[in-house]
Amino acid sequence: MPVPKANLYPPFNIVRLSHVELVVRDIAASRRFYVDTFGMQVSYEDSGVLFLRGLEERNHHSLILRQGPEPMANDLGFKVYSDEDLDKAAHHFKSKGLPVSWIERPHQGRTLRTRDPGGLPLEFYHEMKRLEPIHQQYARYRGVRPLRIDHFNCFSTDVDASVAFYNEIGFRVAEYTEDETSERLWAAWMHRKGGVHDMAFTNGRGPRLHHVAFWVPTPLSIIDLLDLMATTGYVGNIERGPGRHGISNAFFLYVRDPDGHRIEIYCSDYLTVDPDHEPIKWNLKDPQRQTLWGAPAPKSWFEEGTLFAGVEVRDPVLQAQPIVAP
Amino acid sequence: MPVPKANLYPPFNIVRLSHVELVVRDIAASRRFYVDTFGMQVSYEDSGVLFLRGLEERNHHSLILRQGPEPMANDLGFKVYSDEDLDKAAHHFKSKGLPVSWIERPHQGRTLRTRDPGGLPLEFYHEMKRLEPIHQQYARYRGVRPLRIDHFNCFSTDVDASVAFYNEIGFRVAEYTEDETSERLWAAWMHRKGGVHDMAFTNGRGPRLHHVAFWVPTPLSIIDLLDLMATTGYVGNIERGPGRHGISNAFFLYVRDPDGHRIEIYCSDYLTVDPDHEPIKWNLKDPQRQTLWGAPAPKSWFEEGTLFAGVEVRDPVLQAQPIVAP
Amino acid sequence: MPVPKANLYPPFNIVRLSHVELVVRDIAASRRFYVDTFGMQVSYEDSGVLFLRGLEERNHHSLILRQGPEPMANDLGFKVYSDEDLDKAAHHFKSKGLPVSWIERPHQGRTLRTRDPGGLPLEFYHEMKRLEPIHQQYARYRGVRPLRIDHFNCFSTDVDASVAFYNEIGFRVAEYTEDETSERLWAAWMHRKGGVHDMAFTNGRGPRLHHVAFWVPTPLSIIDLLDLMATTGYVGNIERGPGRHGISNAFFLYVRDPDGHRIEIYCSDYLTVDPDHEPIKWNLKDPQRQTLWGAPAPKSWFEEGTLFAGVEVRDPVLQAQPIVAP
Amino acid sequence: MPVPKANLYPPFNIVRLSHVELVVRDIAASRRFYVDTFGMQVSYEDSGVLFLRGLEERNHHSLILRQGPEPMANDLGFKVYSDEDLDKAAHHFKSKGLPVSWIERPHQGRTLRTRDPGGLPLEFYHEMKRLEPIHQQYARYRGVRPLRIDHFNCFSTDVDASVAFYNEIGFRVAEYTEDETSERLWAAWMHRKGGVHDMAFTNGRGPRLHHVAFWVPTPLSIIDLLDLMATTGYVGNIERGPGRHGISNAFFLYVRDPDGHRIEIYCSDYLTVDPDHEPIKWNLKDPQRQTLWGAPAPKSWFEEGTLFAGVEVRDPVLQAQPIVAP
Repeated sequence: MPVPKANLYPPFNIVRLSHVELVVRDIAASRRFYVDTFGMQVSYEDSGVLFLRGLEERNHHSLILRQGPEPMANDLGFKVYSDEDLDKAAHHFKSKGLPVSWIERPHQGRTLRTRDPGGLPLEFYHEMKRLEPIHQQYARYRGVRPLRIDHFNCFSTDVDASVAFYNEIGFRVAEYTEDETSERLWAAWMHRKGGVHDMAFTNGRGPRLHHVAFWVPTPLSIIDLLDLMATTGYVGNIERGPGRHGISNAFFLYVRDPDGHRIEIYCSDYLTVDPDHEPIKWNLKDPQRQTLWGAPAPKSWFEEGTLFAGVEVRDPVLQAQPIVAP
Repeated sequence: MPVPKANLYPPFNIVRLSHVELVVRDIAASRRFYVDTFGMQVSYEDSGVLFLRGLEERNHHSLILRQGPEPMANDLGFKVYSDEDLDKAAHHFKSKGLPVSWIERPHQGRTLRTRDPGGLPLEFYHEMKRLEPIHQQYARYRGVRPLRIDHFNCFSTDVDASVAFYNEIGFRVAEYTEDETSERLWAAWMHRKGGVHDMAFTNGRGPRLHHVAFWVPTPLSIIDLLDLMATTGYVGNIERGPGRHGISNAFFLYVRDPDGHRIEIYCSDYLTVDPDHEPIKWNLKDPQRQTLWGAPAPKSWFEEGTLFAGVEVRDPVLQAQPIVAP
Repeated sequence: MPVPKANLYPPFNIVRLSHVELVVRDIAASRRFYVDTFGMQVSYEDSGVLFLRGLEERNHHSLILRQGPEPMANDLGFKVYSDEDLDKAAHHFKSKGLPVSWIERPHQGRTLRTRDPGGLPLEFYHEMKRLEPIHQQYARYRGVRPLRIDHFNCFSTDVDASVAFYNEIGFRVAEYTEDETSERLWAAWMHRKGGVHDMAFTNGRGPRLHHVAFWVPTPLSIIDLLDLMATTGYVGNIERGPGRHGISNAFFLYVRDPDGHRIEIYCSDYLTVDPDHEPIKWNLKDPQRQTLWGAPAPKSWFEEGTLFAGVEVRDPVLQAQPIVAP
Repeated sequence: MPVPKANLYPPFNIVRLSHVELVVRDIAASRRFYVDTFGMQVSYEDSGVLFLRGLEERNHHSLILRQGPEPMANDLGFKVYSDEDLDKAAHHFKSKGLPVSWIERPHQGRTLRTRDPGGLPLEFYHEMKRLEPIHQQYARYRGVRPLRIDHFNCFSTDVDASVAFYNEIGFRVAEYTEDETSERLWAAWMHRKGGVHDMAFTNGRGPRLHHVAFWVPTPLSIIDLLDLMATTGYVGNIERGPGRHGISNAFFLYVRDPDGHRIEIYCSDYLTVDPDHEPIKWNLKDPQRQTLWGAPAPKSWFEEGTLFAGVEVRDPVLQAQPIVAP
């Protein structure tokens, strides 16, 4: 397959991924995990809901936790460059036959809601309440020292279709995996903000949220979190890592929150702002694409994900399985 | 003074700073410093000239060393988004009454040369020869493990004027220092690529190049370089640091190359891609803006810089001196 | 079982473990691994033999590689406090009915050879050729930056008997695992030099050498080695880790050399010099004793080891298997 | 001068330095500094007194803070190998004509008090209350993550005499500085426990306590403390560093507590257990002995120290001043 190409002059300007809302069953347990252990900062807190940000974020929140009966993800949120870009986005999605609505979100300006062709619920806004910088209030640093949200990773039933859709709205592929037999995409990492990705897709039953990732200062922050989780009752929540990804070159760890939502902790990828930055292609049979050091991911990592509220899940178009050493 | 505001729809699209050429007196000595000790990768080498890149750069070069009689800096290079942006840039600079010429540069597409109103020589291009990724060839990692060029820092005789000029072409101020008495800018850190800066200006005799900075993985890379330079004959080339800047929050070290050109090694600043990202203002009397931990910079750091080839140096408009503890 | 107690006034004074000789099939391949990749320093080199030391060692060598037809380990070497201690040691081993001989070793003073009751070949010396300090020659630092040999770990067919023997000659148990059913020791970590161990024993077919460990500066040195091995043809030689041991609290990695000899890279254990330092007891059923973060070791790690030259291997007294998650 | 030689069979067996008591003027302020910021763990607390330990220490305390009218240091505490060693120590000190008394200390067995010939108050004990291990309770890790006390450093009026006295009781010199002109010792680093020092002496008005040092896991722990102190009101308490010492090769930072007592944070020195470990000699004129990277120490670091309670201070025998770049 030819290298997927982004639209360099997209119909509207998305700055970056911004936030996601996760439904959790026990908000107190989630607070212990995300705030006391992981180290997120509380922007706003009310009965059954928590708005959190990372230590360098000035946007009001990058993670919303909302108590509910079943673990679930709501919309994936993106920030656009200007208020006008929201209207351009609405126009674009309508022209694609996608459902468009204007919704109210707390701490956020006018917000456009839609779904991508695979069914992923998306929301776009330009203005969010801005908070004072706290990145030099080092007394707040604890846990893994989460600095900012880095990316979403979703299962897609048709990665080629997902990439085509996001390419058109300006997402650029940084790295991708191809299934050699079918010459179809197995997975792709796409960005707007100049890192390896804001959004990644992997072939699988979907749409489902595979994980949300937060950026941390150094690999040692990740080792700190491992030591802390391992000795405060969360050893069973450590799913995969630490390791270095072949794809993205990032140092990573995957943990599961008390409801099973998967969080990646991530650092050390690279700058991709050049418009002529060439995507790196990986072979589906190369195990180093997943872990440069060779250790395989556990079965749960390949299979489990978070459902999106109200979104039906389907089987993927591509049935081949990635080679995983047991 | 009101917070300096960038033009959010600039007349042409600059992606990032890209490269600089330094004139050195002994190319072999420079090679020992930059390649063998510092860890830059050689892209091309010929009699009296070296083209170097960082470990994650795919552009052919970010640093050119050229042998000559006197240490000097040539043009500061910037990459633009498309070939068409070069024509728009030419038009813009002409409209400002600035000198514009089209020049030939090796390994680089068509290139526009101009000067900023303060006299700084600038060049803009869209295409540069691209090389294979080497960031996962870890056998190449040595020295401080330079990943990529991060920014230029220049003395300006009129920081208000510099900021106004670069604001107009889309550079956004991330942080700045104001002289409270005159309400004029003392220094400003301006970016295009989404970090704290691509370009910074400090009040002083100018235009002169204060330093070129390279991004490294973690503070421990900087400690490695200190140990290495201190025991391989370069202890006298260590000028300032290691430390954390108040401004930018970066972990830093300043070293001088064999010709006295100042190189900053830099990591751990923060993401600034939001168009509504608020600049942070620092008081000229706050010593923590320079070193969060309180240690003063040496006199040489305030006074010395590299001349630009063929550019006359003038005294600054603003005469007040920054408060520096002895 | 009662906590194993060291003889606080042993019959002779062992300072620390010192060195081991490994037989390798291709000395050039071993040199590429240990010197070029791992980072050991060459003290002496001749046809078919390499004497190596770590970066802070002044003893002539801590690792000898000798070319031979089959991978094998020769004697485990220990340094005693004084020349007189060698005679006391000879007397002690004779009184136990163990074979004693005086042998010649290159770069080493008079050397006493014996076997422990389980058959492990041991040698003791007081004087070894001393070399100039190189720990501040940072240009030599590469690979994992091995600073010094840290410990041996051996399979023992009867850990209770091994511990009793080494307790009597002054080794103190820092941590141990007990099989709750039989109330017998499953494994023990014993030291002379004030860290967690100079020598560890694990129940299994023995005597065999499980691994030799080298001390490195920080966990980041281990990450560097992983990146380097993974991209220079050694990805298959990475066996287990990185991780934190429950026992010892050390940050670790296990790799296999080109002949399958297992090397541990180890840092961050704790000081144990107090004579009343209490051993820590672990339950055989607690998986966190092996990896604090929960990830299981691979099967090879439990089963494979290096044979000692000329030493017959027997089945262990204790047949229960450690619980290992698949 | 010939290299100072330790008595390899000293009259009694000192295991290591153990603890010190500092008099502070405001125990609440000291608690904020040592416990909340620095990260020491509270073993016992009562009106006007705090007993603290590091995270890997099982001894009840390594630092006692006691409220009093003037900042002061009381006895330097050392642990001996056995109860019998206390009697041997009493005998030895009496034979030297030094004052000897048996005193009561809380949480500690019988305790011998004396002074060294320069007037330094010393106490020796064998038994101290032992506490449960907490080094794997990672939720307790904060601040600089102090693991254990590492050494004392004192001004001595006659370093030759100090070294001779401590050599006789088994302390070995790891590194030393000689004044070339007088051929007298300027400073010496002496150990019992197998690191670079338990006790160091520097020429100066004395006896005074220059600093107490605590061992931390990695240089990044020190960077964390700098960030924290710099942003919680302690920026003025950062005195020197971070840096690497030439002598000891340790990565260091010096801070002052609220009463001006100097604390060193220290990691990465080397193992010195070999009885034939050769001392390293440094020239008083070599500035890299103090900071390998070349940065000079501030004036306060050379001049200020803590008085010992009830001990008169005298001028040093040796008047030459160390060369310090301004």
